Amino acid sequence: MMNDEDKQAGPSRRAFFKSTATLAAAGAGLATGHARDVLADPAMRGMQAGNLVEPFWGMHQAGIGTPQQRHVYFATFELTTAERGDVAALLKAWTLAADRMSRGETAEPMKTGLRTAIAPAGGGTHAYAMPSASEQAADTAETMGMLPYRLTVTFGFGPGLFSQGGHDRYGLAAKRPQALVVMPHFPGDQLVEAHTGGDLCVQACADDPQVAFHAVRQLARIAAGVAKIRWTQAGFLPQVPAGQPARNLMGFKDGIINPATDDPRQMNQFVWVGTEGPEWMQGGSYLVARRIRIALAHWDQMNVAFQGQVVGRHKYSGAPLGQKHESDPLDLKATDKDGNPIIPENSHARLCAAASNGGAMILRRGYSYNDGVNLTAERWPPWREGLEYDAGLLFLAYQKDPRTGFIRIFDKVSRFDMMNQFVTHVGGGIFACPGGAKPGEYIGQRLIEA
Amino acid sequence: MMNDEDKQAGPSRRAFFKSTATLAAAGAGLATGHARDVLADPAMRGMQAGNLVEPFWGMHQAGIGTPQQRHVYFATFELTTAERGDVAALLKAWTLAADRMSRGETAEPMKTGLRTAIAPAGGGTHAYAMPSASEQAADTAETMGMLPYRLTVTFGFGPGLFSQGGHDRYGLAAKRPQALVVMPHFPGDQLVEAHTGGDLCVQACADDPQVAFHAVRQLARIAAGVAKIRWTQAGFLPQVPAGQPARNLMGFKDGIINPATDDPRQMNQFVWVGTEGPEWMQGGSYLVARRIRIALAHWDQMNVAFQGQVVGRHKYSGAPLGQKHESDPLDLKATDKDGNPIIPENSHARLCAAASNGGAMILRRGYSYNDGVNLTAERWPPWREGLEYDAGLLFLAYQKDPRTGFIRIFDKVSRFDMMNQFVTHVGGGIFACPGGAKPGEYIGQRLIEA
Repeated sequence: MMNDEDKQAGPSRRAFFKSTATLAAAGAGLATGHARDVLADPAMRGMQAGNLVEPFWGMHQAGIGTPQQRHVYFATFELTTAERGDVAALLKAWTLAADRMSRGETAEPMKTGLRTAIAPAGGGTHAYAMPSASEQAADTAETMGMLPYRLTVTFGFGPGLFSQGGHDRYGLAAKRPQALVVMPHFPGDQLVEAHTGGDLCVQACADDPQVAFHAVRQLARIAAGVAKIRWTQAGFLPQVPAGQPARNLMGFKDGIINPATDDPRQMNQFVWVGTEGPEWMQGGSYLVARRIRIALAHWDQMNVAFQGQVVGRHKYSGAPLGQKHESDPLDLKATDKDGNPIIPENSHARLCAAASNGGAMILRRGYSYNDGVNLTAERWPPWREGLEYDAGLLFLAYQKDPRTGFIRIFDKVSRFDMMNQFVTHVGGGIFACPGGAKPGEYIGQRLIEA
Repeated sequence: MMNDEDKQAGPSRRAFFKSTATLAAAGAGLATGHARDVLADPAMRGMQAGNLVEPFWGMHQAGIGTPQQRHVYFATFELTTAERGDVAALLKAWTLAADRMSRGETAEPMKTGLRTAIAPAGGGTHAYAMPSASEQAADTAETMGMLPYRLTVTFGFGPGLFSQGGHDRYGLAAKRPQALVVMPHFPGDQLVEAHTGGDLCVQACADDPQVAFHAVRQLARIAAGVAKIRWTQAGFLPQVPAGQPARNLMGFKDGIINPATDDPRQMNQFVWVGTEGPEWMQGGSYLVARRIRIALAHWDQMNVAFQGQVVGRHKYSGAPLGQKHESDPLDLKATDKDGNPIIPENSHARLCAAASNGGAMILRRGYSYNDGVNLTAERWPPWREGLEYDAGLLFLAYQKDPRTGFIRIFDKVSRFDMMNQFVTHVGGGIFACPGGAKPGEYIGQRLIEA
């Protein structure tokens, strides 16, 4: 009985993907069945079949400059080992698994797999490896038969990798980049332990929530005995037409002003670490994550014009106040007939603007989150207490240096932004995301082995 | 300044939808831009443009027999009013809002809206109403510009609508259907207050998570002063080829055996209330919701063959043990050469099978959920304590009568199922979902006004 599974292998994700890609490569047009459904998915718009896979290897880690997927599962981990060698082995195993999963493979290769020929759902015959029933599963299988849905897995290192309570536990303390600062406490911060910190982080993004969940789950399983999950957060974006910014849960278009990910000059200026950083960080970036709870019930009681004053933009069009179109420039000097600024002094758009921050820009790549309802007390009048939405924004921002990026901008925002009436930062972390890797290398190798 | 928003209206969801539907209705094939992306979405497979909207009005409420969407936001409410008239007014307002949102309209009509002509993203010119800046928003706008994504909103009545603590608060106690039982306590139940019960429930399903969230948020806002949220749960399904069951977080295909929603005979036999019920429940159904937490880390340590024994099916193929294909019949009489049953006596598939329960079937319409990690203790060896995934299944099952449906089946399952080592029911509720309504009626009217 225990070996029945050996004879019962179903289609692997990779075998399935291969058959789909082949169909498309043959230029067969939109066929019936799954291949058509997937290739025509709006998440894939403008993409060729080969691009259903986001490449894992490269100068930069995937998931930073990558066009944003619809879902994220973000997780941070605590290292529980005392050995640097364990950390190296973990990062090596994670790198291999992340590459495999990005291509639609199982997380780990099958140790005693059979090679079997079966007919996948899309037709045709493929040979592939499946785990035998008697071995521990190398993959928990909830994505079996699914496409990779543009999965990216991005790794980052928190301060705890370099030292913990003043203890240089892996001999890496001297290598901590200056840019990986201790995050200052900002006015209004209410960071709770259960959603804050982490020695390592994993950002799994995909156009399917189960694919993102699956990726984190496999990495956590692989980490057993070396690192354990500290906190996680799932997030989503709404489906909007290509190139249009999504609306966040405040009902406003978010991410209108962002460095252009397809412009290397802007990316090098604002996002990628260059030669000013340690060698292992070159091509990498610093991630500031913040779990931002929004007092939605309170916000919903404000009228739309007031909401516009808070944001500095018109709610429906996304245009800067006083303008017509979302892409119209933010004219911070414009005044009304009484000489008052059209974009209020303490509006979010003004305070975040590059022009208000010495030219600083960060690459925001956040997601809305919805964790149901729980007990809370509002921070501002009418100070309501009770069950409220635990929903808001998983803010994820990449930058060349947090001191000249998030910290510079948020120092002002946290003190003056009218929006602070409605939002509370309740968790987060700071992570150094190293440069990418070539096949045969692993993420962080140049730090760990140097 | 406060009236700027008047001049800044963006495209309404309806205007947008109209332009898309028109394109498709003209048989223009797959055009470029948003219309193409949406119409080609796999969630819409096999559907005409008009079917991007799931009809709200009808003999049955939408969201029960409707092909399952990818996302759910489920919410239950406590009534805080003492007046039956308030309940009637709430259900009337909810009905109107649910219909409007299902068609991509704002939740409430605009009281002082302008009529404005603008050019939506898809081209063309449309006239529509938008709220003025000076009125309270009639919609929180996070779905503005989006299609309805097959939104359905399904309403149910919990025991608390009929009486609360023995008090007949709305004069409806005598109308409580016998089938709306007090749910028995089952072995292993660990229902926590924060995820249990509710006087009313709302199941919002859509192919986009923000559309589902938006629907519940508008209904909660409309309910202010009459009802308040008690608990909520978001859930998702993975994207799989048309007609294939999705895998749950245990990695197994779920929902292989279900009444056929396109077969009126099966639906009448198992799902829809007929003349045996009170008149207002005819065409309705009873919903049993359970929040089922799965000890995923524990499950992942089991080998695949053992997992198959627990479920009674092969993990990868979904076939019953000893069979080849997922659609092969579950042969409960099959034995191996030693005379032992191939499908174990205490396997999940055997215990849930109609043949094991006097022919009983329920329509399962559940979703996986992922609420991150939190502290828990496992119920079975190795009794691990610590941060574990708060993830699993939001089980939603519809049936003609819970006494001959869920309760009959789960009485046995809760006592004997091997799967109970890995799953814990941590919340839920029972709800009478009345029949559907015609335009001009509201959901539950035949109960409230009779």
